[in-house]
Amino acid sequence: MKQAVHTIEIQTRGKGLYEFTSRIDEWVQQQGMQAGLLTVFCRHTSASLLIQENADPTVQSDIRSYFDRIAPDDGPYVHNYEGPDDMPAHLKTALTQVQLSIPFVNGALTLGTWQGVYLFEHRLRPHRREIVLHLIGE
Amino acid sequence: MKQAVHTIEIQTRGKGLYEFTSRIDEWVQQQGMQAGLLTVFCRHTSASLLIQENADPTVQSDIRSYFDRIAPDDGPYVHNYEGPDDMPAHLKTALTQVQLSIPFVNGALTLGTWQGVYLFEHRLRPHRREIVLHLIGE
Amino acid sequence: MKQAVHTIEIQTRGKGLYEFTSRIDEWVQQQGMQAGLLTVFCRHTSASLLIQENADPTVQSDIRSYFDRIAPDDGPYVHNYEGPDDMPAHLKTALTQVQLSIPFVNGALTLGTWQGVYLFEHRLRPHRREIVLHLIGE
Repeated sequence: MKQAVHTIEIQTRGKGLYEFTSRIDEWVQQQGMQAGLLTVFCRHTSASLLIQENADPTVQSDIRSYFDRIAPDDGPYVHNYEGPDDMPAHLKTALTQVQLSIPFVNGALTLGTWQGVYLFEHRLRPHRREIVLHLIGE
Repeated sequence: MKQAVHTIEIQTRGKGLYEFTSRIDEWVQQQGMQAGLLTVFCRHTSASLLIQENADPTVQSDIRSYFDRIAPDDGPYVHNYEGPDDMPAHLKTALTQVQLSIPFVNGALTLGTWQGVYLFEHRLRPHRREIVLHLIGE
Repeated sequence: MKQAVHTIEIQTRGKGLYEFTSRIDEWVQQQGMQAGLLTVFCRHTSASLLIQENADPTVQSDIRSYFDRIAPDDGPYVHNYEGPDDMPAHLKTALTQVQLSIPFVNGALTLGTWQGVYLFEHRLRPHRREIVLHLIGE
């Protein structure tokens, strides 16, 4: 049994979903393991992780619109000095997650056919987001 | 330290919560380990996982009703060609999770007394759902 | 590769976020590992876990207010014999999570600068909550 850790960066350009499945997959392949558990961890409180449908892009825009409706920028927030999109960003992060673990078998992640891994950016301005990848297996 | 991976299938019959704690527990017991970490992974984007109260069934029906209220079938979705229950299914999946990890000690999962593990089916029609179980420990 | 398991208790005093990052960190340090994966598991269905901003306390009060708005105590719930705050507590638990896994490297958790680990208590009365910590690494 062995483990590996790696940090990747994702440059965002405003609110939305940024798929990075292939970057995870590539790194996992490079570790040369056959089976194990991959953990993806987002080091932020205003961006989060989602596994979602990777086929029709309207799913992603509907997800973004939905979270803007349930946690709007003009909500009754006390915390507002970092901009109107900051507190909703924390709420959207709380409603989704900052960590995902995905088993892999026979050298491949066990993601379903339609599952892609996304960074969900909740801030309006561009950000450089850090994602930690941890792999344990053999 | 060793690991084991297994896929189970759950046949659903429309929206609702389907408990499968005993199936997980049975498989974990068969691996003959004493302590470790179990990861449960749902390979879908319109069904998800929940750990919830396993005592009073009204908790489960209230959960189902609640998610139907906050992500209704008649919402303003662009993505609708897979049926009115498809986009809400993606949203409910985003609001819950597709992965759970549960420590186990002394040969037993550390679930609390009232915690059951459920597949949360969000589609109206029956589906066969695949759940990957990954266990690492000794 | 080795593992360690430990249970900590958190005494709550009504609804709100209770940070326990330092307790996790202290325990991880005591295990003397250099790298691995920490899993935090909450053994309850009416309290949950969140990683959130640890700088401005108004973020935490806004989070609490927000969840009270989207899952109010006076909602149309069938399950109500455990008190008006019980069913909303289950819903808030479903909307957040009961498990978090955090990689650690060079003897330190890879939490971001602003990330704290919180128990999110959803019940009005004081409770003693059990959190299981599982660490695997070397």
